[in-house]
Amino acid sequence: MNRTAVDTEGAWFEPERITELRRLLPIPYVDVVPVRTDVDGTVTDVGLLLRASGSGRIVRTIISGRVLVHETLREAIARHVEKDLGPMAMPRIPASPTPFTVAEYFPTPGQSLFTDPRQHAISLAYLVPMGGETEPQEDALELAWLPVQELLDSTILDEMEGGHDIVVRRALAHAGVI
Amino acid sequence: MNRTAVDTEGAWFEPERITELRRLLPIPYVDVVPVRTDVDGTVTDVGLLLRASGSGRIVRTIISGRVLVHETLREAIARHVEKDLGPMAMPRIPASPTPFTVAEYFPTPGQSLFTDPRQHAISLAYLVPMGGETEPQEDALELAWLPVQELLDSTILDEMEGGHDIVVRRALAHAGVI
Amino acid sequence: MNRTAVDTEGAWFEPERITELRRLLPIPYVDVVPVRTDVDGTVTDVGLLLRASGSGRIVRTIISGRVLVHETLREAIARHVEKDLGPMAMPRIPASPTPFTVAEYFPTPGQSLFTDPRQHAISLAYLVPMGGETEPQEDALELAWLPVQELLDSTILDEMEGGHDIVVRRALAHAGVI
Amino acid sequence: MNRTAVDTEGAWFEPERITELRRLLPIPYVDVVPVRTDVDGTVTDVGLLLRASGSGRIVRTIISGRVLVHETLREAIARHVEKDLGPMAMPRIPASPTPFTVAEYFPTPGQSLFTDPRQHAISLAYLVPMGGETEPQEDALELAWLPVQELLDSTILDEMEGGHDIVVRRALAHAGVI
Repeated sequence: MNRTAVDTEGAWFEPERITELRRLLPIPYVDVVPVRTDVDGTVTDVGLLLRASGSGRIVRTIISGRVLVHETLREAIARHVEKDLGPMAMPRIPASPTPFTVAEYFPTPGQSLFTDPRQHAISLAYLVPMGGETEPQEDALELAWLPVQELLDSTILDEMEGGHDIVVRRALAHAGVI
Repeated sequence: MNRTAVDTEGAWFEPERITELRRLLPIPYVDVVPVRTDVDGTVTDVGLLLRASGSGRIVRTIISGRVLVHETLREAIARHVEKDLGPMAMPRIPASPTPFTVAEYFPTPGQSLFTDPRQHAISLAYLVPMGGETEPQEDALELAWLPVQELLDSTILDEMEGGHDIVVRRALAHAGVI
Repeated sequence: MNRTAVDTEGAWFEPERITELRRLLPIPYVDVVPVRTDVDGTVTDVGLLLRASGSGRIVRTIISGRVLVHETLREAIARHVEKDLGPMAMPRIPASPTPFTVAEYFPTPGQSLFTDPRQHAISLAYLVPMGGETEPQEDALELAWLPVQELLDSTILDEMEGGHDIVVRRALAHAGVI
Repeated sequence: MNRTAVDTEGAWFEPERITELRRLLPIPYVDVVPVRTDVDGTVTDVGLLLRASGSGRIVRTIISGRVLVHETLREAIARHVEKDLGPMAMPRIPASPTPFTVAEYFPTPGQSLFTDPRQHAISLAYLVPMGGETEPQEDALELAWLPVQELLDSTILDEMEGGHDIVVRRALAHAGVI
């Protein structure tokens, strides 16, 4: 098994194999926007990861990864949260399987608001409050919890890649805080 | 202040006053379906209250009550949960203010699937996982946590009044368990 | 019956009466964001009304109005659309009664993102594609259909009052176009 | 190109190829519940197809099919509606890309409420009102429009396979008619 492939894709395929599959099928994904909430459920902070992008730049990202064959969406969400935020994050996965939005990532910019040079991914996006302790794992350099207003006043969202800023903005609109 | 009015309505009005208001305006409500969830967010149990109905029958109900003037929906949800399940229920009020359904209660049966002989109420319905200890309060005689399948196999839902069974079924459909 | 009260409120009350009710109860509202869609359902244009605000300024607004007692939400949506856009608008009221967001308007700025100096209103917000011909009615001076990108590139949203810009932005986020 | 594969899968693969892919990845699907609505948007009728199932039985089904690589969800919905209901169906594809539910089909019964012996499919489910004339196409034997109450009073839903009845019930719950 190729360790790099596992780390970056959560996929148990050789890199050549996943490259081939990506030419043939849309790849099912989950996007997770990690948040902290008040006692009354109001979103207060958004968790963003700092990691090296494919092109070598350092970028802020949300949690995003493949759904594996025979894996439920809940299992995929839990697995990717644990992979990125550690085993003590205690995610409160929503009771409903309905995502707050669906992000369609295409290799060609302009076909939608979302791009992924590697593939056509169909990503179900969830807002997940974290109830425990989080720490960046593996290839994430840092995890920052940003108060909503501070995030909006900064340029952080504008610097996110592939449309991840739009996923975050839709999450905050869905949560009623913007 | 009339204690009965407070208990049964959560309203700080004389009974005559609320009766008059109900003839003039639709009354904003929140309906809360209390649930227990698995570690992965799956709904496992539904909490139903046993209480005396207006007509003197003993009925199973969900949590339901008025939104007061100048009160936010989150405050109304928290207040009614505490009033019915006690101060240690630790409700996980959803991050989004969007209800899973809107139940329109009319005094006249047949105008919608929901009836309330007292009023036209527009109720925003929320699925709220409880993270703490719950115990029936005030005029509730009992709180029963029913596993989803046991609830569906029983006649409990069919015996609920005013369309509360439909609110519960929509909650379970929204949660992806039926 | 006071004609002004009917025109501006859609309410069959004397002005003194509605003023009194507003001190006692939250007032149920519907907000409607009128849109034009492509053949594939994509939102292309947003319809905004130009009208005189309470303070005498000329402002852009969405459709917004009270739900009357004994009126269903669908009836309220249809009535307000017809009142503002005329009888030939042919609104495609969504199949689901679930709003895309709930806007809580408070008289005191800061209690939420939405303000209405007259009242505490709880407004269920719907995105409604119009299939027919629209023309401004009664006290609306103009109805403008604005392409989404043009709207976002302009300052129109920033000039809207009471948080109507936020309702429009949430509608567009819900529709997946921003 | 294998014509059977195109008809039954909407996929431009040899049967052996799609069989292999199905062992490797979850397959992205769309499920469409075709409905007729009243002028006020209320769902009145559900459209069900009669076709031969994989096992040779005659079964009622909803519209269901793969999303192809580089195809948007809206294109996939429009393509499958046209394939099953003909070119004059005039589907009113919802303005929002958010499905009303996500059905996870697994080959092994019991892993979820949905089964598909051929594959692990992740299906985004949409309620789509039809504004035009519909007629069954290709391998569909019949298309029946069933009034909601008649459908619920019959045994039709119980006879549907793979969990399609649950998709229909969730659609009707979402639409507020059950």
